[in-house]
Amino acid sequence: MNRIAACVEYCGTHYCGWQRQSHSPSIQQEVERAFSKVANEKITVVNAGRTDTGVHGIGQVIHFDTHSDRTHHQWLRGVNTQLPDDISLIWTHFVDRKFHARFDAKQRSYRYVILNRPVSPSYLSGRVSWYRGPLDLFLMQRAAKDLVGCHDFSGYRAAGCQSKNPVKEVVKLSLDQSGPWIWLDIVADGFLHHMVRNIAGVLLRIGARLESVHWAQQVLESRDRNLGGVTAPADGLYFVSVDYDAKYGLPNPPEVCRFW
Amino acid sequence: MNRIAACVEYCGTHYCGWQRQSHSPSIQQEVERAFSKVANEKITVVNAGRTDTGVHGIGQVIHFDTHSDRTHHQWLRGVNTQLPDDISLIWTHFVDRKFHARFDAKQRSYRYVILNRPVSPSYLSGRVSWYRGPLDLFLMQRAAKDLVGCHDFSGYRAAGCQSKNPVKEVVKLSLDQSGPWIWLDIVADGFLHHMVRNIAGVLLRIGARLESVHWAQQVLESRDRNLGGVTAPADGLYFVSVDYDAKYGLPNPPEVCRFW
Repeated sequence: MNRIAACVEYCGTHYCGWQRQSHSPSIQQEVERAFSKVANEKITVVNAGRTDTGVHGIGQVIHFDTHSDRTHHQWLRGVNTQLPDDISLIWTHFVDRKFHARFDAKQRSYRYVILNRPVSPSYLSGRVSWYRGPLDLFLMQRAAKDLVGCHDFSGYRAAGCQSKNPVKEVVKLSLDQSGPWIWLDIVADGFLHHMVRNIAGVLLRIGARLESVHWAQQVLESRDRNLGGVTAPADGLYFVSVDYDAKYGLPNPPEVCRFW
Repeated sequence: MNRIAACVEYCGTHYCGWQRQSHSPSIQQEVERAFSKVANEKITVVNAGRTDTGVHGIGQVIHFDTHSDRTHHQWLRGVNTQLPDDISLIWTHFVDRKFHARFDAKQRSYRYVILNRPVSPSYLSGRVSWYRGPLDLFLMQRAAKDLVGCHDFSGYRAAGCQSKNPVKEVVKLSLDQSGPWIWLDIVADGFLHHMVRNIAGVLLRIGARLESVHWAQQVLESRDRNLGGVTAPADGLYFVSVDYDAKYGLPNPPEVCRFW
């Protein structure tokens, strides 16, 4: 048996999210179907992090075991031929049988992209989140600082979140702007369900001056998911990359488009 | 009667192009339907430049005449409510009855975006053109220089092009790169049908070393549209902006996403 790691990029718009579901098409289902076809046996993949309906992936990492002997070139050409247009296999890499895409992930990075202008996105529809009213970036940046560090993020978790430990270490949370685009970059050792979209939702209300700059911290300290309660839309969310120990020698994720 | 100029942004993926057609939905049809609804009378628009199936618009400018008295705010909110998600009205502006969106256009700008990597675009599918093999940007830039200036661009026109005068003045033709993205910016007083996509197609073959760096000039000098004959795909093409005399006081087009 060979264990193979792989990097998958996708547009989440037309899928019910990463995870296989009986009722509608998922990224996982498409990826497993494509790999199974090339492997000529049933392939089941383990991924680094789930993404919800409409959320996009740039550097999603998976692993799977197979009896098939294929070169990286054969996997890449074969699997990409089988995948639909909105899912791409970026690379494959042979790994030790001990490698695990989820358990070995040391850090994960997400980007949340907002188009901030009076008019909706047109050619970026589904690819960015849209906020119509004026936003004060400085207030959002100031509030974001309160969330950096090791905290109990229960105030930012979804009702159905199954994570055992609500304590996560956010090592980076930055906001930048260019013209009407604002993007939020967040890096942590792990994320609760809806954590990034809840953080984006809270910071958006602060930027819009609907809440004070201290509100992000208040939601954090409350540890009460009913206090925040504003989940920003999935459209603007990208699962950017996963960090593993250098010993695995995994290739880099695809370069992120400047506004993603 | 009021004459109104307006700026429209759109994703061309699901349309047969700008121009109204009997067989399938066009941008023009959607725009006229939305304006007619808000004006409460039949509106027919004149646009600055047609775009083909799959080509996107960022700063398309139109004009129309109407008996309706609406404020800019009323047009913007009303029309955008009527438009589908992939078309946005950016601004309206009252203009002199002599203003004509097409005849008064002094310069038009297009951007052609290429994702240059072995694997197809996934979340940018339909929004960028994809070139799989290695490209030498320097060769493309060198060849592009030969096309700047006032020339007969018959070698770069489509078979069915109805333009009376094949002589156009290209005032800018630049190529830039960031990671796997390459974008071509071109500004001219006018364009022949398929001119940008034919220029992109010729430069791509030069960048891929399938043709010599002199080929762009040879196609130009031949004035023979059968010599070039490589029309790059529509997906990566954006009609960015139109320049008019400052006396009309038109607002700016939307800011272009860095890679568009």
